[in-house]
Amino acid sequence: MKLFLVPIFALLGVGSAYAQTAATASDYELDAKQAEVAQGLMEEALNSDLAYEIVESLTTEVGARLAGSEAEKRAREWGVKLGKKLSFDKVSVEEFTMPYWERGAMQVTLTSPYNQPLYGTALGGSGASSDTIDADVVYFRSIEKIKAVKDGELKNKIAFIDGDAMVKSQTGGGYSQANQRRRVGWQHAERGGAAALVVRSVGSDFHRFPHTGMMSSKEGTWPAIPVIAISNPDADQLRRLHGLGKSMTLNLHSEAAWKGDVSSGNVILDIIGREKPDEIVLIGGHLDSWDLGTGAVDDGAGVAITTAAAELIARLPKRPRRTIRVVMFGAEEVGLLGARAYAKQHESELANHVVATESDFGASTIWQLVSNVDKAANPVIDAIGRLIAPLGIARGGSEVANGGPDIIPLVEAGVPTVRLNQNGMDYFDLHHTPDDTLDKIVPDELAQNVAAYAALVYLMAELDVEFRTVSEQEPQSE
Amino acid sequence: MKLFLVPIFALLGVGSAYAQTAATASDYELDAKQAEVAQGLMEEALNSDLAYEIVESLTTEVGARLAGSEAEKRAREWGVKLGKKLSFDKVSVEEFTMPYWERGAMQVTLTSPYNQPLYGTALGGSGASSDTIDADVVYFRSIEKIKAVKDGELKNKIAFIDGDAMVKSQTGGGYSQANQRRRVGWQHAERGGAAALVVRSVGSDFHRFPHTGMMSSKEGTWPAIPVIAISNPDADQLRRLHGLGKSMTLNLHSEAAWKGDVSSGNVILDIIGREKPDEIVLIGGHLDSWDLGTGAVDDGAGVAITTAAAELIARLPKRPRRTIRVVMFGAEEVGLLGARAYAKQHESELANHVVATESDFGASTIWQLVSNVDKAANPVIDAIGRLIAPLGIARGGSEVANGGPDIIPLVEAGVPTVRLNQNGMDYFDLHHTPDDTLDKIVPDELAQNVAAYAALVYLMAELDVEFRTVSEQEPQSE
Repeated sequence: MKLFLVPIFALLGVGSAYAQTAATASDYELDAKQAEVAQGLMEEALNSDLAYEIVESLTTEVGARLAGSEAEKRAREWGVKLGKKLSFDKVSVEEFTMPYWERGAMQVTLTSPYNQPLYGTALGGSGASSDTIDADVVYFRSIEKIKAVKDGELKNKIAFIDGDAMVKSQTGGGYSQANQRRRVGWQHAERGGAAALVVRSVGSDFHRFPHTGMMSSKEGTWPAIPVIAISNPDADQLRRLHGLGKSMTLNLHSEAAWKGDVSSGNVILDIIGREKPDEIVLIGGHLDSWDLGTGAVDDGAGVAITTAAAELIARLPKRPRRTIRVVMFGAEEVGLLGARAYAKQHESELANHVVATESDFGASTIWQLVSNVDKAANPVIDAIGRLIAPLGIARGGSEVANGGPDIIPLVEAGVPTVRLNQNGMDYFDLHHTPDDTLDKIVPDELAQNVAAYAALVYLMAELDVEFRTVSEQEPQSE
Repeated sequence: MKLFLVPIFALLGVGSAYAQTAATASDYELDAKQAEVAQGLMEEALNSDLAYEIVESLTTEVGARLAGSEAEKRAREWGVKLGKKLSFDKVSVEEFTMPYWERGAMQVTLTSPYNQPLYGTALGGSGASSDTIDADVVYFRSIEKIKAVKDGELKNKIAFIDGDAMVKSQTGGGYSQANQRRRVGWQHAERGGAAALVVRSVGSDFHRFPHTGMMSSKEGTWPAIPVIAISNPDADQLRRLHGLGKSMTLNLHSEAAWKGDVSSGNVILDIIGREKPDEIVLIGGHLDSWDLGTGAVDDGAGVAITTAAAELIARLPKRPRRTIRVVMFGAEEVGLLGARAYAKQHESELANHVVATESDFGASTIWQLVSNVDKAANPVIDAIGRLIAPLGIARGGSEVANGGPDIIPLVEAGVPTVRLNQNGMDYFDLHHTPDDTLDKIVPDELAQNVAAYAALVYLMAELDVEFRTVSEQEPQSE
């Protein structure tokens, strides 16, 4: 907590003074009492281990929880139990049906020019090999190169798509670019008639872990061939051999397969608003994880941060004006299935969703607050930004909040968003690998997240402010 | 190279001046011409990528090379080819017979209180499970705790030995202590009648890699039960569950087994001395590696550093006075088998081994020179120490050089030693894991190693100095 305590202590008990000085920088000033409550929540959060205890419990007592699996079901039971133990007014599970993909066993070995085992894993949606595949490798330096392949040109070959080292950044910029080979590489390999596809992992680390992740379907279809990601050091090895002019042969086998429809679900924890119970401020994270790690930073942390923030608000003497809803989304990793199910199941109430945001970018500290709300509400977000600035959080300017992956279907339905951007510099070192485990989370950094969420969410639920883009429907004289 | 070039350039061409000023700090001063040659070697080494090219070639073209395996044989062929391509006068392979242990397939899964896969690997010398083992876990907080177990007390149980986080240090101190559970844990588990033993990996990292490594035999016998190391994050998980008072059940299976006698060998590259060809300055590293990584830092780096240093000396206009011998030892990891074979095969010539040293502690920079030579020769080592000091290397004081693991049998036979101590702070993050790959080596750091070895080895071979402990046989008047 040491990192953040000093500025917060300096603010304690000076809520009114703060609100007054804040007014010099903006048209809007927070009500002094509300600001004081928000500051108290921040202070409380920085002194609390609640979020860490939640993610410790989830990763210890459930562990990996692949979308649609028995373990994901156990995670829902865990979420319900947690919600009931804490101070939420209403706890429910909303189930939905989804197609289930399972990794199964796999192996990939370089057999020529030298016999060397490689560290790989199937990508989400991969097909199986009916038998072990032994085939020559066709090397593609990048996704762009394989896009140029002619139909049928890769018959009886294994395509390997290399790529540049992934750019590390605070914003995570670099991911969507690197991700193309994982997302759509298979469509070109299959079009070329390849027997299998191997890709360089999408990750910014140099550890010997492959990174899994979902592919993009092509009009609802998935690859019939095995698609395997190998670790960055293994991809380096294939690149070196290619550079030496060596022909390569791989032997590989995958038992990955679609297993039919199963149940998944979203866990919903509500703090019912005291004046406007139908108006919802939605926050959350996703409950499922990839099966390789234990889903600590992706996204046990997000579930823990938002649940802990809501819990601190629920412990206040009175409920905020609006309802605060924590959603632990199911089946995010395999295509936002829980988020789409939520948007559908709550279609008629989406107009009452005041604002939505998700924590799903690891467990490092938040450095920026961005928003995508009615411009008339921007000064309010600015004022909240000044309140949480002592946590080391800057107010974003031109950046528009996307709200987080599970918020996409809500954005499509017109729900306004804010986002507390976390430092993603090291996020893609761990992302979708076996290495995503509890020890990677720093409790003080998690507490800083809770502090920011608690203050932001409390104020968005308490203030009598409209975040929707009402300006356009009701033009103002400006 | 940037790190080291400045001080070296400053010394260039001032060999005589250096030798003269050096005399003020010691009774011994290096001959000005010899010092100049040594400085030239350092300069050459810092501008050369030879060592990096050697370890790149070994890890790329051979890869993992388990003692006694077909891959280790390919490594010997690689070593012979390299020695012949470079400037060595004599290249040979000395074979020996050894018992061969192979890892085979394995799996370990937590089945109660929760179903969770663990990341583990067999320890060297582990037995197999005839069938899958499903048994309750008995938790031991440390190796000391299991030493207290009564005979037969662990019947039908799986013992788990936890341990403290391994201390990180520049010297590697902390390893031998942590290593006890890997070395002798099985002897107590088997005495207790356990069905299997699981231990926390001996490693200073928090990645999801298990660390393998050899166990100690008990009077030549090895465990009949499976012995498996799990990664630190997985050991943390079992510790947490134990802390919650949960009973644990593991399901595990191992196909590790001894496979009978096979051939291994040492590769020997000689630069024959121009005046005293029978006097040998022995340097080297070990050629075998564990099978999980590609043996880049353990010990492709040591092979590369010492071979490159010798090659630079061999490129000088004339051979040094004594013979310089590079030994690429076989089968180090499984019990110094190559080193013992060498000592036996060369028993009659060991009295002519003037001094010996090995590079087998990774690929980071050297920070210290230590020695274990006749005290009359200490001022000579001191003078060499001053010569290589601009590389960032301190002269060790009370520390006694052990020469390196493969030098132990030579030390037992009375061969003097020196050692260039590398920074081992991060060595045990990678040690014996899949993550020991080429990308972990920084070319400039490797070049600093070569510079130090080239100067030291050249001078030990060129100077007419006796390093043996002759003082005791011929007492001096002091």
